[in-house]
Amino acid sequence: MGRIICAGLGPGDPDLISVKADRLIRLASHVAHFRKAGRPGQARRIAAGLLRPDVVELAMEYPITTELPFDSPGYNALLAGFYDYWADQLADLGRTTDVVVLCEGDPFLYGSFMHLHSRLQGRAEVEVVPGIPGMVGCWSATGTPITWGDDVLSVLMGTLPEDDLARHAAAADALVVMKTGRNLPKIRRALDRAGRLDQAWLVERGTMPDQRVAPLATVDESDCPYFAIVLVHGHGRRPGGPQ
Amino acid sequence: MGRIICAGLGPGDPDLISVKADRLIRLASHVAHFRKAGRPGQARRIAAGLLRPDVVELAMEYPITTELPFDSPGYNALLAGFYDYWADQLADLGRTTDVVVLCEGDPFLYGSFMHLHSRLQGRAEVEVVPGIPGMVGCWSATGTPITWGDDVLSVLMGTLPEDDLARHAAAADALVVMKTGRNLPKIRRALDRAGRLDQAWLVERGTMPDQRVAPLATVDESDCPYFAIVLVHGHGRRPGGPQ
Ligand SMILES: C[S@@+](CC[C@H](N)C(=O)[O-])C[C@H]1O[C@@H](n2cnc3c(N)ncnc32)[C@H](O)[C@@H]1O
Ligand SMILES: C[S@@+](CC[C@H](N)C(=O)[O-])C[C@H]1O[C@@H](n2cnc3c(N)ncnc32)[C@H](O)[C@@H]1O
Repeated sequence: MGRIICAGLGPGDPDLISVKADRLIRLASHVAHFRKAGRPGQARRIAAGLLRPDVVELAMEYPITTELPFDSPGYNALLAGFYDYWADQLADLGRTTDVVVLCEGDPFLYGSFMHLHSRLQGRAEVEVVPGIPGMVGCWSATGTPITWGDDVLSVLMGTLPEDDLARHAAAADALVVMKTGRNLPKIRRALDRAGRLDQAWLVERGTMPDQRVAPLATVDESDCPYFAIVLVHGHGRRPGGPQ
Repeated sequence: MGRIICAGLGPGDPDLISVKADRLIRLASHVAHFRKAGRPGQARRIAAGLLRPDVVELAMEYPITTELPFDSPGYNALLAGFYDYWADQLADLGRTTDVVVLCEGDPFLYGSFMHLHSRLQGRAEVEVVPGIPGMVGCWSATGTPITWGDDVLSVLMGTLPEDDLARHAAAADALVVMKTGRNLPKIRRALDRAGRLDQAWLVERGTMPDQRVAPLATVDESDCPYFAIVLVHGHGRRPGGPQ
């Protein structure tokens, strides 16, 4: 009787994988990972140097989305079918072997694995190994603490409507905005409305070799990286005053 | 010329330390850690099994606080002096040797090390190794994803006034409240006012051997653990509907 083990891989640097996930991946006979059609997939890239030469790999390719809008019922049905299919495959495999599912960051924080996790309940033994979220690697890359004292930190998705982004950006002390890409112009407008644009940073591929950290206001309007996070640092209570 | 290296240790289980921090701690000739007077200190406990037998240990003991309220100018001055003192000590030591500062969770997320980090700028080479935040270990312990789709996640400190807690709790989809202890009755009232008490969980010592996970509403009013986090899970968009 095998298990489905989802291993959080952290933000990108393989040295930031947990001791536990590192061991599980090095020993794994079967690994699975999500990817967009024709693209390598972040999780697979992070784990590349750890995999056994004889490992059996399952690439779970998201259905292609150019025809259907991201939030349409049609795309939703397509995705549900995709998750159903892979939950069946993993439940089957899990009868005889362990399968390690590779996930970027922490699996339970906006991770795709959660859609398999819910579908596998009662059908397989499932274990989730937490990882350092991508946002933690990104604020680490800025070399500046994200929160102090009793700062409020809000984590937002760039897919939210502009008004929601602006409202939450104004209400919190520190901010993380994920899923940038073509949402970046909207995120920028929302931060500007909330008076936070001048304090915002863009971190692309945080902790990876080609990492980039830049003040958001200096980033070209047409430059919309997908694998990036927008951050605003908090400035809460500090004994001895601001340093 | 040495370095001051702050190693994030993750939520508690030593197996969740990053490969990098694990290696740095096992090799360290000098380690430093924060603790309350007479108490072992979480970070020191997490790293206990990794330290060299001949390691030189610096215990940075917080000034005693029973006399002065936490938010008084007097306590603030005491803390500032404490951080000034230890920044001097570390800057001195860092001239000749590497010192690894042990920090629970991730150092840049409400961590005490940040007060040394800001004071050490320009005086020593400082490196911060990110870790899995305590809250990630805690939501992992509930076995349930914390955020889905475009859920808004807010991270709050239990030290905030009740009105602020209630307002932020009502505005977000998913919630983390840290620094529980004697703030727990107030946190509970705030969540109740925001209509979120029935969905809230208390996780004490997440990922540690004596971990406890309980619905907050069932926890006795007089039971106010310090090393605990309150969580409310989000329920965002899921292809195929709720599972
Ligand atoms: C669907 S979320 C998955 C988050 C993941 N479960 C985690 O804990 O980080 C994908 C988003 O994470 C962000 N992200 C994750 N890691 C990142 C990194 N190292 N650098 C920049 N952005 C990152 C990007 O905004 C990307 O759009
Ligand atoms: C000053 S904060 C430090 C946070 C730390 N830097 C981190 O990233 O988790 C201390 C608070 O973290 C929370 N905490 C951290 N780890 C925890 C764990 N494993 N279980 C429960 N609470 C935890 C508690 O609420 C505690 O009051």
